[in-house]
Amino acid sequence: MNRGERAAQRAARRRGRSKSSFLTIPFRQIQNSLSPLELISPDQVEQLHGASMHILEEIGLDFLDDEALDLWQQAGAKVDRKASHVWLDREMVLELVAKAPASFTWLARNPDRNLTVGGNTIIFAPQGGVVFAANLEIGRRPGRLEDYERFSKLVQMCNVLHVAGEQLIVPHDVDVSLRHLQRLRLNSTLTDKALMEAAHGRIIPSDSLNVARIIFGDPLPAEPVLAGIINVNSPLRYDDRMLGGLITLARAGQINIITPFILAGAMSPISMAAALAQQNAEALAGIALTQLIRPGAPVIYGGFTTNVDMKSGSPAFGTPEGAWAMAIGAQLARRYNLPYRGSGSMNTSKVPDAQAAYETMWSIWPAVLAHTNFVMHAAGWLEGGLTVSYEKFILDIENLAMFQHFLQGLEISDETLALDMIAEIGPGGHHFGTAHTQARFATEFYQPFTADRLNFETWQDGGSFDAAMRANLLWKELLTQYEPPPIDPGMKEEIEAYVERRERELAGVELYS
Amino acid sequence: MNRGERAAQRAARRRGRSKSSFLTIPFRQIQNSLSPLELISPDQVEQLHGASMHILEEIGLDFLDDEALDLWQQAGAKVDRKASHVWLDREMVLELVAKAPASFTWLARNPDRNLTVGGNTIIFAPQGGVVFAANLEIGRRPGRLEDYERFSKLVQMCNVLHVAGEQLIVPHDVDVSLRHLQRLRLNSTLTDKALMEAAHGRIIPSDSLNVARIIFGDPLPAEPVLAGIINVNSPLRYDDRMLGGLITLARAGQINIITPFILAGAMSPISMAAALAQQNAEALAGIALTQLIRPGAPVIYGGFTTNVDMKSGSPAFGTPEGAWAMAIGAQLARRYNLPYRGSGSMNTSKVPDAQAAYETMWSIWPAVLAHTNFVMHAAGWLEGGLTVSYEKFILDIENLAMFQHFLQGLEISDETLALDMIAEIGPGGHHFGTAHTQARFATEFYQPFTADRLNFETWQDGGSFDAAMRANLLWKELLTQYEPPPIDPGMKEEIEAYVERRERELAGVELYS
Repeated sequence: MNRGERAAQRAARRRGRSKSSFLTIPFRQIQNSLSPLELISPDQVEQLHGASMHILEEIGLDFLDDEALDLWQQAGAKVDRKASHVWLDREMVLELVAKAPASFTWLARNPDRNLTVGGNTIIFAPQGGVVFAANLEIGRRPGRLEDYERFSKLVQMCNVLHVAGEQLIVPHDVDVSLRHLQRLRLNSTLTDKALMEAAHGRIIPSDSLNVARIIFGDPLPAEPVLAGIINVNSPLRYDDRMLGGLITLARAGQINIITPFILAGAMSPISMAAALAQQNAEALAGIALTQLIRPGAPVIYGGFTTNVDMKSGSPAFGTPEGAWAMAIGAQLARRYNLPYRGSGSMNTSKVPDAQAAYETMWSIWPAVLAHTNFVMHAAGWLEGGLTVSYEKFILDIENLAMFQHFLQGLEISDETLALDMIAEIGPGGHHFGTAHTQARFATEFYQPFTADRLNFETWQDGGSFDAAMRANLLWKELLTQYEPPPIDPGMKEEIEAYVERRERELAGVELYS
Repeated sequence: MNRGERAAQRAARRRGRSKSSFLTIPFRQIQNSLSPLELISPDQVEQLHGASMHILEEIGLDFLDDEALDLWQQAGAKVDRKASHVWLDREMVLELVAKAPASFTWLARNPDRNLTVGGNTIIFAPQGGVVFAANLEIGRRPGRLEDYERFSKLVQMCNVLHVAGEQLIVPHDVDVSLRHLQRLRLNSTLTDKALMEAAHGRIIPSDSLNVARIIFGDPLPAEPVLAGIINVNSPLRYDDRMLGGLITLARAGQINIITPFILAGAMSPISMAAALAQQNAEALAGIALTQLIRPGAPVIYGGFTTNVDMKSGSPAFGTPEGAWAMAIGAQLARRYNLPYRGSGSMNTSKVPDAQAAYETMWSIWPAVLAHTNFVMHAAGWLEGGLTVSYEKFILDIENLAMFQHFLQGLEISDETLALDMIAEIGPGGHHFGTAHTQARFATEFYQPFTADRLNFETWQDGGSFDAAMRANLLWKELLTQYEPPPIDPGMKEEIEAYVERRERELAGVELYS
């Protein structure tokens, strides 16, 4: 091959790879074969456990929902109806928690995208509950339905994301009472991944279940097809909105992700030990309730504990304290043999800069190392989750793909040890041109799609783009390549008809009743 | 306290903290009590070991230095003098390697900054071998002596860095043969931290030893006072420059950090298993040589193995493959009971952007988790180590401080569990104003100095600075606050006189003879 041919071949490879490297990453569930990061000793886990049992028994929690109070009362818990307050004996709680499955299957519309929850598996989920959209063109503005659509498409295209997402962004141009219907429509048609939807009150989850019945059949399969996140109103309070969701999902055998939201120093005492004991008490109370409603109902132990920034009073994300909480939360979940939910792209930066990236790494590294089974917000966050940035989303996807590759591990065999090649090249030579290298160069290493490794001059000639600018080009290019996943036309029509009917019924209705 | 008083107190706290949070981080050696990250099984470690023994015995290495060849010949190794090639039996190598200490003390000019090398300790060292200086004002230009001075001052002020650094930047405005003298002068007077200096040839380390004798006395103490990095010219070659340094340091009982420099696909076969087997063979050969020269000489097993970017042919840093190599290198070093050297801030970005930050995290997280004892380049890198950025340096220091805090772990005790406070505040309340919070709010959490956690509007009103811009303000502010560490005036004069004398003697001399 002469020089010109080599250059042409290189250019073709470049084109081929730059277009496809992102989209050729396979969809597959990640197995984490590393030993989990253990920050505290088993004795210390028991200390936290003991403190949380004390909280449940002696301090108790508010459950601001009559049905929940009925359930606790029937189960024999001490209930103060007037104060909506419940004290829970450890025996009762632990007996209930023990009924929850250690792992389960979560069905997706596309069976190839079914997921195992628990054990050593990892699920990466996109951002949720986000208010603002940001990108390099528009700056930052309230989210719109068009942003929801775009992110649904990107979620579908990013094979390292395993689920369709939940409240990817607030569509401010849709009436409050109708937003979940649009989300359900987009999540179930623009993607074929496992479904999540807000578990707020009883109406939204009922609509979610009805859409699920269109997709999965009625009655629903024995295995769950829908997940919702239940955020405790820490400290020590489940409100009617979250309890309505919890009860509706548990009764239908769907997945509750029970997640206390604790900023130490605000919603708990400032010391992380107290925050974690409180988190554990709050999570176990909710998990126990799911099992009271339906023994064996799939449930995930969630942690969302970090510190407050004592200078500004704002939440602090991607902190050493948050990393402690992430890892110790996983140790506690393992203590009860439950799948664990943590978070991925947490940061407080306003722009997709170095801070956004390193704080994110302070959340995704401990999440992965701790054996988090369900990594919420694994992509997209800026600004403490108020904002999703299109560019940050792409940068986070790059890192999730790197983790997928990293956790695959390396092969050690006669072939990969290649002692014959080491002998052949000998001292001082180079291995660029060997048959061993040529046979493997396209697939051996992780191929980045946003990292720039060019030399300074070439990078400068190309416009001196930083990572955010490259990510900006990529998400726009990706959206031009989106193809909707196959869906039975009848199913699609039925979903759309359901959404339209409910839009008429729910216009102006207060959803959290 | 009324509202005005509270506001004044807050402002005072803000002032106090913004000035001091960086400088009040204590100098102390980090203990890593986490279980080390183990990526491969003990059997796989033995597979790599076996392959590297095969390389040493059957393939052999070049040693391009007569004294080294003499040493091997006297020890009974098979030597081809004409080819400068040596084959090493595993028995001989392992017997020699076993003589190296598992841990040792490294003395600094200031005894409070003495270091333990090995075991569970971590040493963070600044960037080394860097050509260009970059910051937001100057862009990127060849390094100057003024850059070296500034970085020496910053290294001294950053308590999370444990050593004075080694070739922080090339001072292009100093004659090549005199650069090490300027480095020695600045490293030993602007800082009081443990000394490193290039281990290139025999002249530079001899000058380093002479300066060390001025500081530590002649004869030098039994414990080492100086470290140098020996990069193998991979594949399988030690050149005369590195061997001169290795022999000079080992003979004087000083620290050799033996570090093969392998980019898989270029200096080794493309498969990481081969790269690691080769790294192990190369490192053990050099380590064995140090013990041949002086049994018990302090030595560190170094790894600097990553992949080549197959698209550009450039080195790739901060990659999943590099993370494998970092962690498995540590497993190999533990196999031989040796302290381990890895690297920290490795990345290929040209600017202190998101890529620079996340690639850096892909190098510092595995380094810390793998129980790296000596983390070279823990701050400052851009562009594959060609450039040190003032801003990136500060951002990296922030992250090292976060690791120092993270590895301290959290206290779990009756006091930190604070069950009384949880009971007192009860459901739905908040803990901002409690006595427990007030007593701890200034010290409980890691206090960032570059991360911005303000709300969007306040951040925008402040100028919409990104992390690099904040870091830019900080390094300039820090340099105005630099105070040289105390030094005996006679010692300082003697160092300066030595440097001046040698400047006259070495002007225009070829150093690597």
